[in-house]
Amino acid sequence: MSGDVIPRTIEWRNGSIRLVDQRALPDAVRFVVCRDVDELVAAIRELVVRGAPALGAVGAFGVALAARTASRSVDVRRAARRVAAARPTAVNLAWGVDQALAAYATGGAAGALERARAIAAADVEANRRIGALGAALLPVDARVLTHCNAGALACVGYGTAVGVLRAAHEVGRLASVWVGETRPVLQGARLTAWELSRLGIEHRVIVDAAAGSYFAAGSVDAVVVGADRIAANGDVANKIGTYTLAVLARAHRVPFYVAAPTTTIDLAIGRGADIPIEARPAREVSHHGGVRQTPRGAAVANPAFDVTPARLVTAIVTETGVLSRPNRARVRAVVADAEPG
Amino acid sequence: MSGDVIPRTIEWRNGSIRLVDQRALPDAVRFVVCRDVDELVAAIRELVVRGAPALGAVGAFGVALAARTASRSVDVRRAARRVAAARPTAVNLAWGVDQALAAYATGGAAGALERARAIAAADVEANRRIGALGAALLPVDARVLTHCNAGALACVGYGTAVGVLRAAHEVGRLASVWVGETRPVLQGARLTAWELSRLGIEHRVIVDAAAGSYFAAGSVDAVVVGADRIAANGDVANKIGTYTLAVLARAHRVPFYVAAPTTTIDLAIGRGADIPIEARPAREVSHHGGVRQTPRGAAVANPAFDVTPARLVTAIVTETGVLSRPNRARVRAVVADAEPG
Repeated sequence: MSGDVIPRTIEWRNGSIRLVDQRALPDAVRFVVCRDVDELVAAIRELVVRGAPALGAVGAFGVALAARTASRSVDVRRAARRVAAARPTAVNLAWGVDQALAAYATGGAAGALERARAIAAADVEANRRIGALGAALLPVDARVLTHCNAGALACVGYGTAVGVLRAAHEVGRLASVWVGETRPVLQGARLTAWELSRLGIEHRVIVDAAAGSYFAAGSVDAVVVGADRIAANGDVANKIGTYTLAVLARAHRVPFYVAAPTTTIDLAIGRGADIPIEARPAREVSHHGGVRQTPRGAAVANPAFDVTPARLVTAIVTETGVLSRPNRARVRAVVADAEPG
Repeated sequence: MSGDVIPRTIEWRNGSIRLVDQRALPDAVRFVVCRDVDELVAAIRELVVRGAPALGAVGAFGVALAARTASRSVDVRRAARRVAAARPTAVNLAWGVDQALAAYATGGAAGALERARAIAAADVEANRRIGALGAALLPVDARVLTHCNAGALACVGYGTAVGVLRAAHEVGRLASVWVGETRPVLQGARLTAWELSRLGIEHRVIVDAAAGSYFAAGSVDAVVVGADRIAANGDVANKIGTYTLAVLARAHRVPFYVAAPTTTIDLAIGRGADIPIEARPAREVSHHGGVRQTPRGAAVANPAFDVTPARLVTAIVTETGVLSRPNRARVRAVVADAEPG
């Protein structure tokens, strides 16, 4: 169904990985084909593909690609490490690599590919469950604010935060969506607005700094965002600006929901402060539409993510259930539920 | 002194108004010369000149321009009303027009021009006093966050919020400045960063949504912003995003200062909710550096200002004194102090 209006973010085709080129959206639907790990790492770094769940599948397919193009297992493992290190914050990337490497150890290249395909299929299924569970949390005629793109394009398909919005839309609970443009890379303005228009969901794009005035006006009933990594205590790393929205939501008594599959939870990280935060190139901030706006040589800080403490999170919506008022015990329980057998 | 490194925003030259073209900064220092009221109104609307104190002087010089180019007083008053209506939120524009019209009524064209020149001179003097008073409020080695441009370019010279920063810098109290880029028009990235680099003040430009993470890290000691209009109860209208910073400041127990001359206070407006908020063109949001980023036809909301309630304001720094925990009585008192004799 998602394939009808939004192309699948990641596909394995003839021994290569085909990615929707998210740099070209919303103007053009173009694809980038990665034939080896070098091309894949470049695509990840340049944000051809992004979004934590998508990176999970990309990591797994990356191992399948390495297994197809390298013959010695030591080379496959080395290539896999390069894929895992292409971006530091989303835990899913390393998780996907680890999953496929384990399958490769027992089943070789075919095993790695089979595992990658299973991860991709499971991602879409998990998102549909997240969507249904999250939609049930929203009030009727909800006006929801979202940030960045936690949509089909951030996953293999369907979407996490946008999955909640589309599920709510399907059952008639959603009135409209405020889309923060999400500087500097504009995933909100470019990708979420594109998905919502394809889905026929009413929305308006705003500059990120305008969110506060809509909270103040009583025009935001809920915030729904995705996550790049969730620590064992429920702290959430997500796109820069998410923490500010959580503070605004709390100040205005608006619920703040995080929609993410359990693969985004990293039990090895105790708390948000220990999550590595990627610093992206200064040019993303200094330039707009290719045009430099800051004075030549101006100092810029460009952290790509921030951390929202668990105490500001109303609930984390996962495929195995809604984790209200997250804490260590509840996070552990929801991960245990997700594990097979 | 300010003339040394930053050109004067507004000058009366040979019967015309010369404005620094703020659209061309930071790459080029260019000027726009307005020879009649049509040209001036267009320059105001297109943000050649902006900033509440600057608009006060522009309004007054606009009457002088009208008085020079029209012969009948009815035409001068009609032209003056067009200048006053060019932008709705900053009260200073209408205030400057009213001041010069009153002088015109008694002193004709020469009277209007004399009043405009007095307003321009008083603006720089007021800003120096605001700077000194505000600097004294900052801790030693202060790391200050500012938004938009409340600098020399937003005034006739020196600056209000940036005036506080430069005064603090001169006495060695300032460590560094976080400059929010201030989407959509980027007055922070373009103008404040340019002024600070000219002044040799250490600073870093960030996307607006990144502010929260620096508060969370304990890296912001104070917020200092300007104002476009202050209601009788102390509510402050300022550039979109200011309210969000005030909420963040309160949540992190960081002082939130508004630096503004008493001419920005509008006793005729009882509370912030009654301040007219300008809706600017959608293109400012949909386009970056001239390049469309949102899907074609995407709905955009673009309010240029928001309102920060007085309860979130630690102090308003005016030329007549520091107005702590603003309320109706204190606002009235500070305005009374400003009135001559």
